[in-house]
Amino acid sequence: MEAPDRIEGRNPVREALRAGRAVRRVLIADGIPERGTVAEIVAAARSAGVPVERLPRPVLDRIAAGRVHQGVIAEAEPYRYRSWEEAAAAAKARGETPLLLALDGITDPGNLGSLLRSAEAAGTHAVLIPRRRASPVTPVVEKVSAGALEHLPIDRVTNLERALDRCKSSGIWVVGLDGEAETTIWDCALLTEPLVLVVGAEGTGLSRLISERADARVRIPMGGRVGSLNAAVAGAVALFEVRRRRSEGDH
Amino acid sequence: MEAPDRIEGRNPVREALRAGRAVRRVLIADGIPERGTVAEIVAAARSAGVPVERLPRPVLDRIAAGRVHQGVIAEAEPYRYRSWEEAAAAAKARGETPLLLALDGITDPGNLGSLLRSAEAAGTHAVLIPRRRASPVTPVVEKVSAGALEHLPIDRVTNLERALDRCKSSGIWVVGLDGEAETTIWDCALLTEPLVLVVGAEGTGLSRLISERADARVRIPMGGRVGSLNAAVAGAVALFEVRRRRSEGDH
Repeated sequence: MEAPDRIEGRNPVREALRAGRAVRRVLIADGIPERGTVAEIVAAARSAGVPVERLPRPVLDRIAAGRVHQGVIAEAEPYRYRSWEEAAAAAKARGETPLLLALDGITDPGNLGSLLRSAEAAGTHAVLIPRRRASPVTPVVEKVSAGALEHLPIDRVTNLERALDRCKSSGIWVVGLDGEAETTIWDCALLTEPLVLVVGAEGTGLSRLISERADARVRIPMGGRVGSLNAAVAGAVALFEVRRRRSEGDH
Repeated sequence: MEAPDRIEGRNPVREALRAGRAVRRVLIADGIPERGTVAEIVAAARSAGVPVERLPRPVLDRIAAGRVHQGVIAEAEPYRYRSWEEAAAAAKARGETPLLLALDGITDPGNLGSLLRSAEAAGTHAVLIPRRRASPVTPVVEKVSAGALEHLPIDRVTNLERALDRCKSSGIWVVGLDGEAETTIWDCALLTEPLVLVVGAEGTGLSRLISERADARVRIPMGGRVGSLNAAVAGAVALFEVRRRRSEGDH
């Protein structure tokens, strides 16, 4: 049997169970009372037929990859990547305007987890990450994403450039976030259209091949004197600007 | 002599020197060539009369509090908190509309550093942090803030409620970020006025005493099914919405 993904922490475990993810067993440290989130986890595991085992905390410490498991770990079937094309088609079928996020070389699992959490909160339909030179979905990513990626399809693509070409040929505009761009995101007319927002790695930004494919490159206008944003924060600010623009007129 | 603040990493050290912060000495690991940022650091240290010492990397590893010093550490005079009232008055004198950020119980240094970086990038004039139940400015905070707090005054206040009362009596509106609020930040008419944005800790949110003082409580509208943002990301999204609203008509 393939080694399980370990999901660590109370919210991530609860969200994994809520989302119906295939969990082999839930481990809870001795002495933790069945209250609040832990009670919800135990109830959800029972109704899904997932065994719950009590173990001494030092055993959980040894099993855990991260430091903050909060006494709760789930052993789940390995993360299943899903098709961005199916997710975009499903969004269209529901009458929604597709919003995708593509990540160009985000190698830090903390940044990836943070981006996925923000993307889900902004209503993104799917995220594209390249197979090479980028962090895959690891238990640390899952923990930082606070349960978000149970509901957000992630597609790990062999070639991000080709995937963006497929976006374009299916009517999805490619907008790259680029600190050096002339246009601001506030002035970008494409945000209300079917869209894939491309966020590059901090420091290096978008690769040339990606940048050439972008229908528009936009920047977040900075104030201040240092004036730089972490890649995960920049992505979140941009996605919520898309969300705001799409809701204009509603409020 | 009081123990120095250790500033670790290339960008933070360069920004500390650029901002004219009192640095006692700069330590650089043996074997690092004087190129790029390191060359800028050496030049800035020389012109400020700050000694630069070469040491074996294991010595730097022992001195460093964090793990990612990149072979460069500065020993600086301890961080000096500054008055938010002077910063707000200086902004007014320059013809700018004051924008302050108050943090209610942010205990994680990574989150604090991230918020300070985003706040500086959004053009915030000063940040208020309470003396108790909150992270002070530590070298980790400085590292994550990527040099931002050399230009951004931070005031550590004994009583945040009283500080907000003083904001109000000096014509600065208090707007609290609150996931349960009825009004969205997109509909808040106060953003173009003199403002202190209050961000609470993730999970617990704003305290009752703070919430009662707020002239408005606003939420960031969520999509998705989990739909929650990290406190540092929520603060950044809100600050850039203030920035956007204040620039409307300019673009």
